Amino acid sequence: MWIVRVDMSDRSYRLQDVSAAYKLLGGRGLTSTIVSEEVPPLCHPLGPNNKLVFAPGIVTGTSAATSARISVGGKSPLTGGIKEANAGSSWAPAVANLGIKAIVVEGQPKDKDKYWLIHLTWDAQAGKPKLEFLPADEYTGKDLYEVFPKLYARFGVKANIAACGVAGEYGYGNSGVCFNDMHQAPTRYSGRGGLGSVMASKGLKAIVADATGGPGVTIVDKALFDQGRKKLADALRSHAITKPKGGLNSYGTAILINILNEAGGLPTRNFSSGRFEGAAKIAGEAIFEGNKQRLGKELYNHACSPGCIIQCSNTWYGKDGKEQVSCQEYESVWSLGANCGIDDLDVTGELIRLCNAYGLDTIEAGTTLGVAMAAGVIPFGDGKGAIKLLHEMGKGTPQGRILGAGTATTGRVYGVTNVPVVKGQSMPAYEPRAVKGIGITYATSTMGADHTAGYTICPEILSVGGKADPLSPEGKAALSRAFQATTAFIDSTGHCLFIAFAILDIPSGFEGMVEEANAVLGANWTGDDVVKVGSAILKKERAFNEAAGIGKEADRMPEFMKLEPLPPHNQVFDVPDAALDSVYGEL
Amino acid sequence: MWIVRVDMSDRSYRLQDVSAAYKLLGGRGLTSTIVSEEVPPLCHPLGPNNKLVFAPGIVTGTSAATSARISVGGKSPLTGGIKEANAGSSWAPAVANLGIKAIVVEGQPKDKDKYWLIHLTWDAQAGKPKLEFLPADEYTGKDLYEVFPKLYARFGVKANIAACGVAGEYGYGNSGVCFNDMHQAPTRYSGRGGLGSVMASKGLKAIVADATGGPGVTIVDKALFDQGRKKLADALRSHAITKPKGGLNSYGTAILINILNEAGGLPTRNFSSGRFEGAAKIAGEAIFEGNKQRLGKELYNHACSPGCIIQCSNTWYGKDGKEQVSCQEYESVWSLGANCGIDDLDVTGELIRLCNAYGLDTIEAGTTLGVAMAAGVIPFGDGKGAIKLLHEMGKGTPQGRILGAGTATTGRVYGVTNVPVVKGQSMPAYEPRAVKGIGITYATSTMGADHTAGYTICPEILSVGGKADPLSPEGKAALSRAFQATTAFIDSTGHCLFIAFAILDIPSGFEGMVEEANAVLGANWTGDDVVKVGSAILKKERAFNEAAGIGKEADRMPEFMKLEPLPPHNQVFDVPDAALDSVYGEL
Repeated sequence: MWIVRVDMSDRSYRLQDVSAAYKLLGGRGLTSTIVSEEVPPLCHPLGPNNKLVFAPGIVTGTSAATSARISVGGKSPLTGGIKEANAGSSWAPAVANLGIKAIVVEGQPKDKDKYWLIHLTWDAQAGKPKLEFLPADEYTGKDLYEVFPKLYARFGVKANIAACGVAGEYGYGNSGVCFNDMHQAPTRYSGRGGLGSVMASKGLKAIVADATGGPGVTIVDKALFDQGRKKLADALRSHAITKPKGGLNSYGTAILINILNEAGGLPTRNFSSGRFEGAAKIAGEAIFEGNKQRLGKELYNHACSPGCIIQCSNTWYGKDGKEQVSCQEYESVWSLGANCGIDDLDVTGELIRLCNAYGLDTIEAGTTLGVAMAAGVIPFGDGKGAIKLLHEMGKGTPQGRILGAGTATTGRVYGVTNVPVVKGQSMPAYEPRAVKGIGITYATSTMGADHTAGYTICPEILSVGGKADPLSPEGKAALSRAFQATTAFIDSTGHCLFIAFAILDIPSGFEGMVEEANAVLGANWTGDDVVKVGSAILKKERAFNEAAGIGKEADRMPEFMKLEPLPPHNQVFDVPDAALDSVYGEL
Repeated sequence: MWIVRVDMSDRSYRLQDVSAAYKLLGGRGLTSTIVSEEVPPLCHPLGPNNKLVFAPGIVTGTSAATSARISVGGKSPLTGGIKEANAGSSWAPAVANLGIKAIVVEGQPKDKDKYWLIHLTWDAQAGKPKLEFLPADEYTGKDLYEVFPKLYARFGVKANIAACGVAGEYGYGNSGVCFNDMHQAPTRYSGRGGLGSVMASKGLKAIVADATGGPGVTIVDKALFDQGRKKLADALRSHAITKPKGGLNSYGTAILINILNEAGGLPTRNFSSGRFEGAAKIAGEAIFEGNKQRLGKELYNHACSPGCIIQCSNTWYGKDGKEQVSCQEYESVWSLGANCGIDDLDVTGELIRLCNAYGLDTIEAGTTLGVAMAAGVIPFGDGKGAIKLLHEMGKGTPQGRILGAGTATTGRVYGVTNVPVVKGQSMPAYEPRAVKGIGITYATSTMGADHTAGYTICPEILSVGGKADPLSPEGKAALSRAFQATTAFIDSTGHCLFIAFAILDIPSGFEGMVEEANAVLGANWTGDDVVKVGSAILKKERAFNEAAGIGKEADRMPEFMKLEPLPPHNQVFDVPDAALDSVYGEL
């Protein structure tokens, strides 16, 4: 397998053999290692010394279930720290099946207004991947729903696409790297942390990958792989949350809306309440029922990427019965819905569609709108106003640029005190005053506020992997630490984090995940090694951040969450600083 | 003497006796002590837990020459660290002569849209200062050139005014606290670091101080005071830079334009060159000649505040022979002129007037325009465009808010890599690649990039207090450290920093400064104590910053200054990190 080194300053590339040190790495483990070893921590995120690293997971490209994840890494323009954001897309196995362990994009062209795309294919004659650099100016300044069909028309249906949107071209702190879904649409995102801007800063508009003829992923121990694959697949197929026609397949991730609302932990109107009176109208059940009404039949969800058993992606159909958008995720309907006081799925659908079109992270977009609403730019609940503001972001007007810069910057620009961010990245859909463990993850994660970095919601809210009182801070530092380390491992395997629901409750599923990875790599990890391997990744990320000036003082909640009790539980965030410091202090 | 504690949450106040620990403190030493002891380092700068501290210097209010400085302190919305910004104004001695050592403004009202002013007078009957809280909504949303006359009309000509402008009301990171000059105009600023917003966040529009009947400043040893006062005054009257009809009195601070341009250290067009072809047209000499032409006579400068010997403030007269603005300072004509590619004093005059009107720091405003020009918002050299943008800032439009948030935020919003800031505060008028010592001060100062924090320009450019090669990094860390510590002492005495020109070259002047302070306080400081006392202040400030998450990784130049050689010397900023770390490491 190869590491592909791309130098955008002269549009050249070379294939490197994978060094021994990188042999056991994949996904997040590999992106974070390369970034921490090669990117100067104090470099400008949009300057020539940042790097953008794409790495499929260890088992990505194999037949392992629910494993088509691509990790994207670099120094984040949003947080100033290290960033890994992963997405599910056929792009990930395509790259893996070309024998590529990582693509490292370096340098930047002198002419900052010109854009290029990379066409990545298999050179059968040479027996290795081949990269062509093609002018891409014709794809810039455009809606990605317009760009993707053009690229498919040009490169064929076997193409897989990674691209940045106009948000990246504008250099927004809120800008993701977009990947195609199973319907060739631009809906899957490595959304968080502004990596779309890093891509654009390198003059790179897209990487079009076609794995036809590629060698596939080498599996060292096929029997062990089959055994592990079966264990994990069986676990996924039997757990209530992950099984076919189970929670996620029926109602999507937005099944959480009612659950979190009930728990008083659904951040509402810029984190001023934990309960939203309109929650039921934007919940997963409402999506299911709404589609049923409009289509005249029950619609179960589909996979975002090949080989997924969970299949949690929905499509939302408009009043005319035509597809409006995929996907109304929990995070998206929350951020652009409850957090903005909006209770209309047609509005959230349109806002999500615009985020996809412009290359924006839906979480950051919704929290930014929430802060803008708190500042009085538009009132809470103003769906039309929100849609107009999204268009401003797409057009790059001054108003749009403020919002595009992200939640923290919008708070600064408007002088708002209640800004729900940690390390410059906005909080996702769980109120830390009502769910203390996830608050600890927000505060301490190397990524800035990020629920996927250590999803303690499992025991705190879902009774998955045990049970913990969400309102209590007791024992939550250790809980968050264990989840953060395990997550770093899962993010390296290439599995979707949602396998966690099954493997936390079903030990054989957990074994299966480890066996798959061992089988591919020829490694001998035990279950105990999962936390060790994950911790090693976290330590690298933490060291990068510290060298970038992001130390333990940045592992803190915004002040308003310590001062203002949150209804309905009327609690503040009361986790002591010492507990926060212990998360990485005792790693 | 008293510390006045103002609580804006219920508009109450109390007078505290000065504790033993505060007896020897004044000015910056006192504001930084109070802030570091009482303000939670991680609080939101615009939230209820920040404090705004006003402290006249130790000798302010006495007859000591050039000593009418007021220090304003708090946690900075611009840097997130501790801030002290001082200004010369009759407001300073007025407060001192009321027997007040500091005013500490705490809390904030529930109703965030209502503003108040404090009328501060002497209560002869009670024998102590008296504060009245009066509604001030009628003064909000207005040009300060409109507000100040209204306040003088209401409170009389003996009033002295401290106020924030609309920039503060909007919560801008660029917002100063404005004080009256000798002509009752709103032209003297504690400009840097956004303290105007802190004032506004407390619902405090103005503090109107009238010292009539006040007890004056107690001097413990009058004979020593007279001796010291004479020594310092003699030095000021004899040094070429500070004497009547000397450099500053003739040409103002803008005398430095030609000197820095010649040295290749005048930052031009957003720090892309050290030389500006239009420098001579905006230099102090051009101001002098321009006024002479328009008035038909030579005009020497005036004092910004009572008792100043140096008298460096100019007034610029427009084409119609009428006063346009005071004061075209070096920093202002540089930032709004050379740094924007503008070579027209009528344009810089108007831009400065608008900064005064709206409550903006001219340095931050000009560097922000420079970054906006680099981003292509308007072209370099576009004076009309610059004036329009200043008006946008005054109106609080989205475009104006971006710029009002300051240089660093504007850089983020437009995705600009070449942003001349340290710790979020923009660099003043000396190019660190051409003058290495001042670059070390920018990098390491507790205040963010700040020339007044350690003005090594004296030996590096002006041959004052010795001589040092500006292009060499050798020995400059120690030089900056010594200047930073000495400056912290001067900023505590209440003397204008410009006494440094005289006291660096004339030892008796230096002695005089120390003797004045000893005489007022009954202290026994020697010349050697100056650095010790100053260092103790710096250590407090540094500790606050570290607790706020601003450590040594923040003591660094922006990356572009290390990568891109600056014409005409084609040098990068080559001071090693270890040298930067030694400034505070060896304090």
